[in-house]
Amino acid sequence: MPGEVIDRPNPEPLPSNVPDSVRDLAVKLDKITLPENVNASLKEFRRAACYIAAAMIFLKDNVLLERDLTFEDIKPRLLGHWGTCPGLILVYSHLNYLIRKHDLDMIFVVGPGHGAPAILASLWLEGSMERYYPQYSRNKQGLHNLISGFSTPGGLPSHINAETPGSIHEGGELGYALSVAYGAVMDKPNLVVACVVGDGEAESGPTATAWHACKYINPKESGAVIPIVHVNGFKISERTIYGCMDDKEMAALFTGYGYQCRFVEDLEDIDADMGNSLEWALREINKIQQAARYDKPISKPRWPVIILRTPKGWSGPKKVEGEFIEGSFRSHQVPLPKAKSDETQLKDLQKWLESYRADQLFAKDGSPTDNIRKIIPEKDEQKLGQNPVAHDPYRPLKLTDWQKYSVKKGGEMSCMKAIGEYLDQSLVDNPTSLRIFSPDELVSNKLDAVFRHTGRNFQWDEFSQFQGGRVIEILSEHCCQGFMQGYTLTGRVGIFPSYESFLGIIYTMMVQFAKFGKMAHEVP
Amino acid sequence: MPGEVIDRPNPEPLPSNVPDSVRDLAVKLDKITLPENVNASLKEFRRAACYIAAAMIFLKDNVLLERDLTFEDIKPRLLGHWGTCPGLILVYSHLNYLIRKHDLDMIFVVGPGHGAPAILASLWLEGSMERYYPQYSRNKQGLHNLISGFSTPGGLPSHINAETPGSIHEGGELGYALSVAYGAVMDKPNLVVACVVGDGEAESGPTATAWHACKYINPKESGAVIPIVHVNGFKISERTIYGCMDDKEMAALFTGYGYQCRFVEDLEDIDADMGNSLEWALREINKIQQAARYDKPISKPRWPVIILRTPKGWSGPKKVEGEFIEGSFRSHQVPLPKAKSDETQLKDLQKWLESYRADQLFAKDGSPTDNIRKIIPEKDEQKLGQNPVAHDPYRPLKLTDWQKYSVKKGGEMSCMKAIGEYLDQSLVDNPTSLRIFSPDELVSNKLDAVFRHTGRNFQWDEFSQFQGGRVIEILSEHCCQGFMQGYTLTGRVGIFPSYESFLGIIYTMMVQFAKFGKMAHEVP
Ligand SMILES: Cc1ncc(C[n+]2csc(CCOP(=O)(O)OP(=O)(O)O)c2C)c(N)n1
Ligand SMILES: Cc1ncc(C[n+]2csc(CCOP(=O)(O)OP(=O)(O)O)c2C)c(N)n1
Repeated sequence: MPGEVIDRPNPEPLPSNVPDSVRDLAVKLDKITLPENVNASLKEFRRAACYIAAAMIFLKDNVLLERDLTFEDIKPRLLGHWGTCPGLILVYSHLNYLIRKHDLDMIFVVGPGHGAPAILASLWLEGSMERYYPQYSRNKQGLHNLISGFSTPGGLPSHINAETPGSIHEGGELGYALSVAYGAVMDKPNLVVACVVGDGEAESGPTATAWHACKYINPKESGAVIPIVHVNGFKISERTIYGCMDDKEMAALFTGYGYQCRFVEDLEDIDADMGNSLEWALREINKIQQAARYDKPISKPRWPVIILRTPKGWSGPKKVEGEFIEGSFRSHQVPLPKAKSDETQLKDLQKWLESYRADQLFAKDGSPTDNIRKIIPEKDEQKLGQNPVAHDPYRPLKLTDWQKYSVKKGGEMSCMKAIGEYLDQSLVDNPTSLRIFSPDELVSNKLDAVFRHTGRNFQWDEFSQFQGGRVIEILSEHCCQGFMQGYTLTGRVGIFPSYESFLGIIYTMMVQFAKFGKMAHEVP
Repeated sequence: MPGEVIDRPNPEPLPSNVPDSVRDLAVKLDKITLPENVNASLKEFRRAACYIAAAMIFLKDNVLLERDLTFEDIKPRLLGHWGTCPGLILVYSHLNYLIRKHDLDMIFVVGPGHGAPAILASLWLEGSMERYYPQYSRNKQGLHNLISGFSTPGGLPSHINAETPGSIHEGGELGYALSVAYGAVMDKPNLVVACVVGDGEAESGPTATAWHACKYINPKESGAVIPIVHVNGFKISERTIYGCMDDKEMAALFTGYGYQCRFVEDLEDIDADMGNSLEWALREINKIQQAARYDKPISKPRWPVIILRTPKGWSGPKKVEGEFIEGSFRSHQVPLPKAKSDETQLKDLQKWLESYRADQLFAKDGSPTDNIRKIIPEKDEQKLGQNPVAHDPYRPLKLTDWQKYSVKKGGEMSCMKAIGEYLDQSLVDNPTSLRIFSPDELVSNKLDAVFRHTGRNFQWDEFSQFQGGRVIEILSEHCCQGFMQGYTLTGRVGIFPSYESFLGIIYTMMVQFAKFGKMAHEVP
């Protein structure tokens, strides 16, 4: 038996043996077609962003295809991940529309951070690149710099990092987007964080447990996450677990995790499907938040989750050398790896790029057309790349003199107990900007003095729901670290005490976080 | 607001807003009362094991309570975890009965490895301690050594480790039991691994994703795991997520993961409930395995899972100093922490220990009564502590000369590609004792030569189900490492290639595994 042969693109999951009644757990919505001009704008934004993203992977010159491509135009080393980009761009376009329509305060946490081309292209279109990097101005020269410089020395990185406007999460090691998103909304009642989770990433332990994080969100004091699971069915070279689960299995799983689950998968009119579903998600969030804020909190609210099923590498090459690319793992990275030396692949690249009709999307000077701009948020601070929540949000804590908590010379006290006292006072003094995340070790770490004025914040527990406790104790070092990162990178202070021996569990997360922090400081 | 106050023991979960139809996903069974003599034996085994486990935590002398307890009898430093023990012992007693009744080949993987007293007590009762450690013979002296030596220098450790007969999984850092259990059953068609997962442990990322492991088990070639989620509702000092989820939420979650879910929670007749449920689990496993082995494989079989809801610290002290202990987080470690200095606590300890009526459980010479022995497997190799699968199971691989895969002096070849060729041949030569576990990086690590003669083993995927592929690619370094550990510690060879930068993700798992291996070599 050789490695399995997948005989068609975008294969559907096998039917499960789960009872059919479970199908009703998936949310049904009336199909409302979007206004024609919105539809057109969304589609043009996407064509432009997909064009730029694809060009970034391949072109070092001739970035607007003003003449036929030659081998000379192709980068010497082709780097970048195409497969995830069309889905990320689909989401980006709709978030833009949603922000505009509802005047939202929103940021975007992107799990598949290897999809940097998608995000950088969208940021360029909305003007967030030029805002921070004048070399990426919204004109021909800026576009040339963006495309030709991507993934080359001195140019833009292949993964989302601290240099990416609006990002609070480093790409690379997968699994932490969701917990970071949940940390970011805590104590930000008006913030909505859209979070894309890859179906590959979803197989990681840290993500698998982070779904429970909704149970630690008090809708009175905190904002909301809209998780969007991007089920494009493939990882680097194998199918994904979620991609092989049918509607019933997925609906059961997410119901169990605490969500209402909506599938977005109408490839014929994906805009209506995505638009209606995001509207629904916002409505559900509003319902939950309003109830909590007007003293009629819903116990165990079922938050919305969106399961987005689109082909991997959608709109890219369909077949290369007889093999499926679109809707297959082969679109994960560079779909035309021989574009620099093979005539056919070069031609395929030209055809692919031409399919987006860049001439209709960019004005003579290279800037995006008005039609595209019409779905981009008007106010700069509402653009996903410029929301102040992700830029310089830090407000120092109010801290009392630590010396008050010391003992007299010659006296004795457990230093952890002293720290507990100090934290107790600090939590009192900073009721909405200091939190403690602990893997159920607060008491055993002798920090329980903090419970003098606060409690735990576990909404599924009758004894601590609705009360605004400042402590979350979940037996997941990954969640604790992720919450801490999201909370801290949006300007507040999260503390994650742990046994030293168990800190190694999240050693690589700490390294990634430290790197992010260091780079963030170095970015102008 | 101070820390929350829990006003009753063993609090039930809040009702969810999940539709009632979901309730039908939980498996219903007719209640069949067990034969009276079996019932009696089970109960006596448990009383004896609970007695010993409790005594291990407290007593350094007078271990059979032959006179009233004095402070002198109490260990100077009280160490150990009581809360999880009664549940582990309940499971142990029923596994014994099941093995005997069905002539099973079974091992036991214990997630809450801090419950070592429960396991050591059970191992002593079945004679597996004396088999490997003559000092723990089944008589008075042996019992004295077992109890008084526990968690003291030179005595038995407080957590399950390589010295614990029958164990293939180190206690301590929680989260890996389930993936280890799944690794152990691969290519062992007749093996059943019972695996207890704590509801605290279940919050960890590595466990949360390991539930999907059933999707990588081919019932034709591999055995089965019976996962038993021990929902005693509390961790060290906070409630658990699973403990706050109602039947509907739990049934939905586990259905989504791919299981049929059975609640065991009839505290009035827990033996009937547990007995019937384990019988059901075996029946379901048989059905799935027989179908696969007689060429009528079930696509997406729904494996059984048992959700065991019992009070934490069941049968221990009910209240101490006005606080609930049984059914509360306060039973997690030492329920009577002042037993060495406080008269009341010493008396409470005496009352507690007396409640098990040790005089009825041990003969004059200190050995367990016949009634207890009647549910212990007769054959030594079927005892959970002595199954050869966990003891010295290693059979060397058939390996070809690696030099055949080298290149001529001066020649050139990617060394990863050469290794791929060598692995290809090795997989061919060792069709049931060599496997590769990879976080979807096999191709990108240039090891894809292995796909010349084998494929992937993903039962949810129509293109690789039922085919016995030797490769599992799950985007979870934790699962890969856990599978590798379980497979390797039961005598086969698992390979887990990874990018160096991502190996840090499971750094602490590697350390724990290395420690286990080192100690296992040192154990006589
Ligand atoms: C923890 C971790 N393990 C392995 C990898 C290697 N890797 C990079 S991308 C990828 C596949 C990701 O799949 P998915 O999350 O579905 O993203 P998409 O398909 O949208 O690209 C893998 C396994 C990684 N980045 N992080
Ligand atoms: C990864 C990890 N984090 C934290 C701990 C500290 N710890 C030891 S026991 C425990 C609670 C375990 O709860 P559960 O799994 O439900 O076991 P049980 O209640 O049966 O004792 C915790 C948090 C640990 N052992 N491992």
